[in-house]
Amino acid sequence: MRFPPLREELVGLAPYGAPQLDVPVTLNVNENPYPPSAAVVEDIAASVAAAAAGLNRYPDREFTELRVALAAYLSADSSHVVTPEQVWAANGSNEVMLHLLQAFGGPGRTALSFAPTYSMYPEYARDTGTAWVAGRREQDFALDPVHARDLVLEHRPSVVLLPSPNNPTGTALPLDVVAALCEAAAGPDIGGLVVVDEAYAEFRRAGTPSALELLPSLRNLVVTRTMSKAFAFAGARLGYFAAAPEIGDAVRVVRLPYHLSAVTQAAALAALRHADELLARVADLREERDALAAWLAEQGLEVAASDANFVLFGRYADRHAVWQGLLDRGVLIRETGPDGWLRVSVGTPAEMAAFRDALTDVGAAVMEETR
Amino acid sequence: MRFPPLREELVGLAPYGAPQLDVPVTLNVNENPYPPSAAVVEDIAASVAAAAAGLNRYPDREFTELRVALAAYLSADSSHVVTPEQVWAANGSNEVMLHLLQAFGGPGRTALSFAPTYSMYPEYARDTGTAWVAGRREQDFALDPVHARDLVLEHRPSVVLLPSPNNPTGTALPLDVVAALCEAAAGPDIGGLVVVDEAYAEFRRAGTPSALELLPSLRNLVVTRTMSKAFAFAGARLGYFAAAPEIGDAVRVVRLPYHLSAVTQAAALAALRHADELLARVADLREERDALAAWLAEQGLEVAASDANFVLFGRYADRHAVWQGLLDRGVLIRETGPDGWLRVSVGTPAEMAAFRDALTDVGAAVMEETR
Repeated sequence: MRFPPLREELVGLAPYGAPQLDVPVTLNVNENPYPPSAAVVEDIAASVAAAAAGLNRYPDREFTELRVALAAYLSADSSHVVTPEQVWAANGSNEVMLHLLQAFGGPGRTALSFAPTYSMYPEYARDTGTAWVAGRREQDFALDPVHARDLVLEHRPSVVLLPSPNNPTGTALPLDVVAALCEAAAGPDIGGLVVVDEAYAEFRRAGTPSALELLPSLRNLVVTRTMSKAFAFAGARLGYFAAAPEIGDAVRVVRLPYHLSAVTQAAALAALRHADELLARVADLREERDALAAWLAEQGLEVAASDANFVLFGRYADRHAVWQGLLDRGVLIRETGPDGWLRVSVGTPAEMAAFRDALTDVGAAVMEETR
Repeated sequence: MRFPPLREELVGLAPYGAPQLDVPVTLNVNENPYPPSAAVVEDIAASVAAAAAGLNRYPDREFTELRVALAAYLSADSSHVVTPEQVWAANGSNEVMLHLLQAFGGPGRTALSFAPTYSMYPEYARDTGTAWVAGRREQDFALDPVHARDLVLEHRPSVVLLPSPNNPTGTALPLDVVAALCEAAAGPDIGGLVVVDEAYAEFRRAGTPSALELLPSLRNLVVTRTMSKAFAFAGARLGYFAAAPEIGDAVRVVRLPYHLSAVTQAAALAALRHADELLARVADLREERDALAAWLAEQGLEVAASDANFVLFGRYADRHAVWQGLLDRGVLIRETGPDGWLRVSVGTPAEMAAFRDALTDVGAAVMEETR
């Protein structure tokens, strides 16, 4: 027998995660480059200190206060009210996705998405024994509604995963496409859920709506969010969703009891009290993103239209050489997405200047070689 | 189709968890009754404040500093050195168990334990699609080594779950029984792991050894611990294990990336710096536990020998009436374990006095009724 007795399908697999390299400019995991302000840090510390005095007790399993605060935040980002009963949260949106697939996926069931898309999705499916089907996106990374609907009818997925904006392409979904897929998934013999992963929703451009708008009319719709990006809270691990209360009740059956620590609950509540300040930075990052996309296009590169805090650009005959060239110049981006493309996160103006300089330099170097 | 499309086997199940009732004396979930001291709270707050300044970045996926601290702590509780490469941690020991069953259990595989035991175990198995087999314990809740070995040979489990001390009975396992089961599980055609769940190990009586002693000689042994109990840290959610490094490497494949937040890592490191102070309270609780067991026996009750911070006692023709009677008097204990038994956690001297008074009072009331 092999030691240890790891499941066959996991043997030889590498743990998921971008390389953790120590470089001056890290633009590889779509982090928010702005650390929390002193006021936010102070509030987090004070809130955690208050919670710490009772850490000998288990936390509120229902994280009631946090659900109230998240519902209020979502209500402000939508033209409808989101209630605390519609909200669920977990340690990062990846645990939210795991909860959804544990409850609604699993052996004998299928999850469907459309590639290129977030590379963790097939891992959530694998870890829950859910069959994984990936349709395709168009040349511009949009969804073809007819192809998407056909795949739903063919594979009858219990969960459809629709990131909007999509990672790594930045592509947002029109609401009519989301609504049509919700209707297809709700059809007889399917009864599936549609999960719109809005991890980057706060970065969407003016005029791009959130799928939250559809919640009142589509009961099989789940909209997930995270505090990692817009709230500059990646280190604290807080993801959440809004959906019909029955969906949260179903997820409660599979969540581990006390999955959200009292410390996490306190820290997230503190950050939410500073939403206005934190979201002001999001506006800066959106401008920086648009400037970055424009600059890349000026260099003659292809650029995917982005509603997120990153930009996919290309296409390179040897993208790895470009990635490595940037790294050699102290700038770490991500070698991900379809062949020939690279993804860069939006950083501070200084980080973006460093990226532009390094890419210009690498571009010249790459051309030298091919001359 | 049913809405939402919850998996068949989960329909109608209630979420796991003891009732969260607001009563003066809560002795129902084996919490440590002593809150962290002002010094501990201050250190946690300062550590979290330092971490909060970088919360826009993802946490260290490998929680390197925390593994070093946990290894040092375990080394001090064992006659052998435990290295950081042997340590894994997650959000509570229930996430540790989930990781182990995701990696080593799953469809087509079996987990084995011995009832009465911790009621979450079958839920971990269910949530990972692992078949669940429960053998039996003896009248005194000890394991019959022959019965246990026979079940291992019959069911060939990939994971054997052995809590020591056992919850809800408080029964610790002799090391020769653990070693014999490790050998049986390691046999040809089995190749399974033995997980000794030492959530309550710090409360063991003098002379009761930890399974950590066996780690150097048994590579298929995993010893799990938690900071919830001895460290009075239930609200912070930190469980961990020590095992051969290959076991941690296997678990890395199934863990969600960044599962341990920077806030959790910082808070746990702070608490570990105060291990001596926190463990002094454990000595008090052990004495209180022994006094409680003696008092219960004096009342003519049966009492299970306990190495934990709780005591199982009985037997009552109508245990629910006793549980309710205590609750009516402001004392919440747990209605769990085999029929006729009740479990009470060890609290402060004042809480124990309240429990004794309430039980005496209820005892009289119960007798009134049966007269």
